[in-house]
Amino acid sequence: MAVYTDVNEEQLRAFLGEYSIGSLLSYKGIAEGVENTNFLLRSSGGTYILTLYEKRVNRDDLPFFLGLMDHLAAKGLTCPVPVPRRDGELLGSLAGRPAALVSFLDGTWLRRPAPIHCGEVGRALATLHVAGNDFPLVRPNALSVASWRPLWDKSRERADEVEPGLADEIDADLRALEAGWPDDLPAGVIHGDLFPDNVFFIGDRLSGLIDFYFACNDHFAYDVAVCLNAWCFEGDGSFNLTKGMALLDGYASVRSLEPRETAILPLLARGAALRFFLTRLHDWLTTPEGALVVKKDPLEYLRKVRFHRRITSGYDYGLRQEIPS
Amino acid sequence: MAVYTDVNEEQLRAFLGEYSIGSLLSYKGIAEGVENTNFLLRSSGGTYILTLYEKRVNRDDLPFFLGLMDHLAAKGLTCPVPVPRRDGELLGSLAGRPAALVSFLDGTWLRRPAPIHCGEVGRALATLHVAGNDFPLVRPNALSVASWRPLWDKSRERADEVEPGLADEIDADLRALEAGWPDDLPAGVIHGDLFPDNVFFIGDRLSGLIDFYFACNDHFAYDVAVCLNAWCFEGDGSFNLTKGMALLDGYASVRSLEPRETAILPLLARGAALRFFLTRLHDWLTTPEGALVVKKDPLEYLRKVRFHRRITSGYDYGLRQEIPS
Repeated sequence: MAVYTDVNEEQLRAFLGEYSIGSLLSYKGIAEGVENTNFLLRSSGGTYILTLYEKRVNRDDLPFFLGLMDHLAAKGLTCPVPVPRRDGELLGSLAGRPAALVSFLDGTWLRRPAPIHCGEVGRALATLHVAGNDFPLVRPNALSVASWRPLWDKSRERADEVEPGLADEIDADLRALEAGWPDDLPAGVIHGDLFPDNVFFIGDRLSGLIDFYFACNDHFAYDVAVCLNAWCFEGDGSFNLTKGMALLDGYASVRSLEPRETAILPLLARGAALRFFLTRLHDWLTTPEGALVVKKDPLEYLRKVRFHRRITSGYDYGLRQEIPS
Repeated sequence: MAVYTDVNEEQLRAFLGEYSIGSLLSYKGIAEGVENTNFLLRSSGGTYILTLYEKRVNRDDLPFFLGLMDHLAAKGLTCPVPVPRRDGELLGSLAGRPAALVSFLDGTWLRRPAPIHCGEVGRALATLHVAGNDFPLVRPNALSVASWRPLWDKSRERADEVEPGLADEIDADLRALEAGWPDDLPAGVIHGDLFPDNVFFIGDRLSGLIDFYFACNDHFAYDVAVCLNAWCFEGDGSFNLTKGMALLDGYASVRSLEPRETAILPLLARGAALRFFLTRLHDWLTTPEGALVVKKDPLEYLRKVRFHRRITSGYDYGLRQEIPS
C-alpha cells in the first residue's frame, strides 16, 4: 500500500504532453507495490499504470526493467508494456522522480490460490525463462547469496529479540548456503519476486505477470524455488505437496529441470527462504512505526527456512520421477 | 489513503453474485477516502467503485446516502449511481461490512484549483441544493453547532499543546457561535464536505461530485460557507477574493442567496471553519502513529476561524451587490 508522492495537474499535464495517449480522464493512487508510487490512469486512449520510481529503486536499473517488459511482451508473454514517449524514450520524469507509463492488465491477484493456479504459475515461469533467453541486457541478482551476510550483519544483533537463539541458527544456515551455493546451473533472466500479488488471473486462467522490479540474471531453478516458497505453503506453515506437484508439472510442461537442478533444489529453496526472511527482518526492525507500509512478518519465512533444512531431494517438493521405459 | 479491509476472491465472488454486472476483470484498492475502503473494480459490464463501509459510518445512514446519490443522478447531477442488486437492494455485505457498488466517474480532482473551477463548483453546489429539494429522506447534520462543544471537550485539555492560549480563544468562538447560530435560513439537503478531492474535472469542466457520506439536512448557506473555506484560501492562509467572487457568482447563477443568508455568511463561515478545525484537532490528538491515514493539519482551519472572525459582511467574500435599477 503506497502512494508516496502525490502529483498535481500541472506536473501531470507536462509529463503526459510527451506521450500520444489522448486526453486525461482520471488518475487514482492505487494501493499496490511497496517500493514505488502507482496511479491507475485513464485517458481517451486507454487505461494505464503510471509508476513513479521512489528512492529504493536504482535509476540505472530502469532500462533493464522496462526493456525486459517490452521484450517479454513481444515474445507473447502477457505483462505490462511500457508506452513509449513521442521521442521514443520509455522513461520520463514526474514530480522529480523517474516515471513510466505501462499498459494496464486486467485480472485479479489471488488471495487464496489453489493447485490449479500453481500449475498456471509454473507454466508462466518457465515461459518467462525461455522468452528471456535472448534479452540482451544483463543485471546481476543484487539479492543473491553474496548479499545475505552484509544484510544479516545489519539485523544479527537484534535477531534474538525476535526469538532467542535465532542469531546462532541463522549463522549456521548462512555458512551452509555460502559453502554449497552453485554457480554452474542453467541461468538467464528470472522474475525473482513471483508472489501471488504479482500474478493476475481472470477466473482460473492466468492473465498476466506484473512487477519486474526484482528481475535479474540468475539460476532458473532459484526462481522455481522462490515460487515454491510463495505459492505452495499454507497459512499454518505446512507445505502443500499437491500445489508443489502442480507448480513443478506446469514448469516442466514448458522447460525440463535438469538432474543437477533437481538435486540442489532443497538448498536453493532454503536460500530463497532465507533471502526473504532477511529482507523482511531488516524492514521489520527498521521501518518507522508511522510509515504507510504494511510490514510483512519475517517469521513466515523463518519457518520455511527450517522446513527446507530437512529436505534432501528435489523430488520431495512434488517433482515427478521419470520412469525408465 | 485507506484500504482498511482486504477482500479475497471467494468473498468477492459471493458478493458480486447478487449483481448483474458480468464477469470480474480486476479490483484494486485505491488511496481515496479516509473513512471507508474503496476498490476500483472492472467487470465485463463496466467500471465501478466498490465501497466497504468501515466502523466510522453509521449503518442506519446508508439508505440516506445511497438514496440521495440515486435521487441526484436522476435529476441530472453527475455523481456516482448505486448499482442495484438483482433483488433491488442498493446495499450488500462483504467481508463482514456493509458494502455498495457505485458507477465509476471519470475526472480528476484538482490539487490547485483556479477561479474558473471555483465558479463551476459554486454552480454545482446550487444545482445540488435545488435537486435535493424533493428528496424524501431526512438526516440531521450530526456535525452542526450542537456537536461542537462535546467535540471540543474531548480536545480542550490538550489544545494548549498545539498553541498556548488556544483553549481560551476557542472557548470564546464557541460561545459566539452558539449564541448567534441561525435556525430559520433556507435549508435542505447539503453536501457538507465539498472539498477539492470530492469534485472531478475533465479539463476545466466539472465532470462530477463524489463522496456524499457527510450529506445531511442543513442551511444551504452553511454549505456555501464550507466551500468558501475549502476552495478560496491559498496555501499561505490568504483569502483569494477572485475565487470567492467566482464561487458565489457560480452559485447565484442557479440559486440566489437571500439577504438574510448573505448577512450571516461570516458567522456561518467561521462556524464551518471551527467544525473542520475541531474534527481535525480531535483526529490529530487521537490517531495512533502507525495508522495508515494521513493526518490533516488542524492549524490550517484555525487560521480560517481567525480570518472569518474579522469579517462583517457576506459581501466581503466576493458576493456582488445588486445595483438598484
